[in-house]
Amino acid sequence: MDAKVLVQKRKLKLTLAYDGAPFSGWQIQPRQRSVQGALKDALLRITGEEILPQGSGRTDAGVHALGQVASLATESPIPVENLLRALNDKLPSAIRVLRVEEAAEDFHARHSAKAKTYRYRIYRGEICPPFLANYVYHHPYPLDEEAMARAAEVVVGEYDFTSFSASDPERSEREINPVRTIHASIWRHEDEEFIYEVRGSGFLHHMVRNLVGTFLLAGRATISAADVGQILAAGDRSLAGATAPASGLYLVNVEY
Amino acid sequence: MDAKVLVQKRKLKLTLAYDGAPFSGWQIQPRQRSVQGALKDALLRITGEEILPQGSGRTDAGVHALGQVASLATESPIPVENLLRALNDKLPSAIRVLRVEEAAEDFHARHSAKAKTYRYRIYRGEICPPFLANYVYHHPYPLDEEAMARAAEVVVGEYDFTSFSASDPERSEREINPVRTIHASIWRHEDEEFIYEVRGSGFLHHMVRNLVGTFLLAGRATISAADVGQILAAGDRSLAGATAPASGLYLVNVEY
Repeated sequence: MDAKVLVQKRKLKLTLAYDGAPFSGWQIQPRQRSVQGALKDALLRITGEEILPQGSGRTDAGVHALGQVASLATESPIPVENLLRALNDKLPSAIRVLRVEEAAEDFHARHSAKAKTYRYRIYRGEICPPFLANYVYHHPYPLDEEAMARAAEVVVGEYDFTSFSASDPERSEREINPVRTIHASIWRHEDEEFIYEVRGSGFLHHMVRNLVGTFLLAGRATISAADVGQILAAGDRSLAGATAPASGLYLVNVEY
Repeated sequence: MDAKVLVQKRKLKLTLAYDGAPFSGWQIQPRQRSVQGALKDALLRITGEEILPQGSGRTDAGVHALGQVASLATESPIPVENLLRALNDKLPSAIRVLRVEEAAEDFHARHSAKAKTYRYRIYRGEICPPFLANYVYHHPYPLDEEAMARAAEVVVGEYDFTSFSASDPERSEREINPVRTIHASIWRHEDEEFIYEVRGSGFLHHMVRNLVGTFLLAGRATISAADVGQILAAGDRSLAGATAPASGLYLVNVEY
C-alpha cells in the first residue's frame, strides 16, 4: 500500500476580495490573467502542490468581489494565519485574501453555498471621477429611479429566471434548472450613486447584469414596472434589457 | 500683412482630475502615455490646433490629481461648456476635465500659481483593500503617529528645502531657488488611513514624497522630530528619508 494514500488532506475555506479590472475573470484560462490562476500559482509556490481552488461561482471579466469564497484541499500543515500572510505576499495587490479557515471535509465553495449577495453601482453625476471609472457604470442621463425600485420588487420570490440568463454554451448542470429564489432586491441612493443590491439562493450567468439592464429600461420608461413580471413569466431572454457593463458589479458575499 | 496675425487667441484655464496609475506622469514624452500628451491629442481632435497645455507643475508617474490646473491658448471660438464636454468625450476615463474657464491673457498655470496643496495617503490596516492598491501607500507596521505630527510642524515656514529636493538634472530655473514657504503641514487619521496634507507656495521635485519619507523615519524613531529641523538646516539630501511611493500622492488643488 502506498504511504501517500494515508496523507489526510485538509479542506480550507478562503474569503477573497479582488479588483476585477485587470483580470479576464475568475476562471483559469490559458494565456489569460485570471483570479483562479493567480491563486493556483501562489498556492504552488507556497505548498509545492498543484491546487486548483474552487470558487463559489465564476465572475466575468471586470466584475469585482468583496467576499468571494473558494475551497481547496491541501496536504500542507501550514497554519491558517501563515497561509493568509503567505498568499497575500505572493498574490498581486489586486487580489487580497481576507480570511483562511479550516472547513469540514465535505465543504465545497459552490455546492455548499446557500445564498449570495451582489451589488451594482451606477454613478449618476455628470462627470465620473477618474478613480471610479473601472468601479461603477457611469450613467448621467435621466432615470425614473422610483420606477426602477418598483421593477426590482417584482423579481422577489421563486421564479424561473431564463429571461435574465445568458445563453451560455458552457452552462453548468446547475444552470439547467433556471429556478432561483430572490430574497431581497433593492435600489438605494448613496451620494452620487444609485446602488442595486440583490440577495438570492443563486444566480444564473449574467443574471444580475441582465436584471439591472431591464430595470434601466423601466428607468427610461421604455417598459413599466409591471412589464418586468411579464418578461419574467415569458422565459424569453430577448424581451429583457441589455446586459449592464461588468465594471459596476460586485460579488458582496456568499452565505453557507 | 498676414490675416492670421489678427486672430485673437483666447486663454483658457482647465481644472483636471486624473488617476496617475496608467500614466508615465504629467509631462509629454515620446512613446509614453502622459496626461499632457492625452490632452494635446484631444485638443487636436476638437480644435484642429496643435496645443500643448501648460500644467501648474509636473506630476510624476503614478501620482494622482484631484485639481491639477492647465492653461492654454486657442483660436477656437468653442464655448467653454462645449469644450468641457468634448474633452471628456475624447479623453480616456482616467482623466476628467472638471472645469473650463476663460482666463486673463497673461494667465499661466505655472507662473501664476500662488499656492498648492498636496495630500499623501498611508493605509495602516493589515490587509490593503485591492481597490486601494494604486491609490495609497500600504504601511501596516508600527508608527509613532504623534512623532510624525510633531515632525511635520517643524517644516512650517519659509526655508531652503534643498534637503528634500530630488537631484534632478532637468530642474527648471524655478528650482534653482530652493526656498519655499509651507503654510500648513498636518497629519490626520481617517478610518484606516493616516493622511498628510501640506499647503505651500510651491514644491521642489519629489519634495512632498521626501518629506513623507522623512516623517516616516520619525514615526519609526530612527530620528526625532527635532532632527527634522537639523536635516532642513543642513541642505543635504542624503540626510533626509527615502522618497515615499508615488501611489499615495495627490495634487489636491492650485491657488491663483
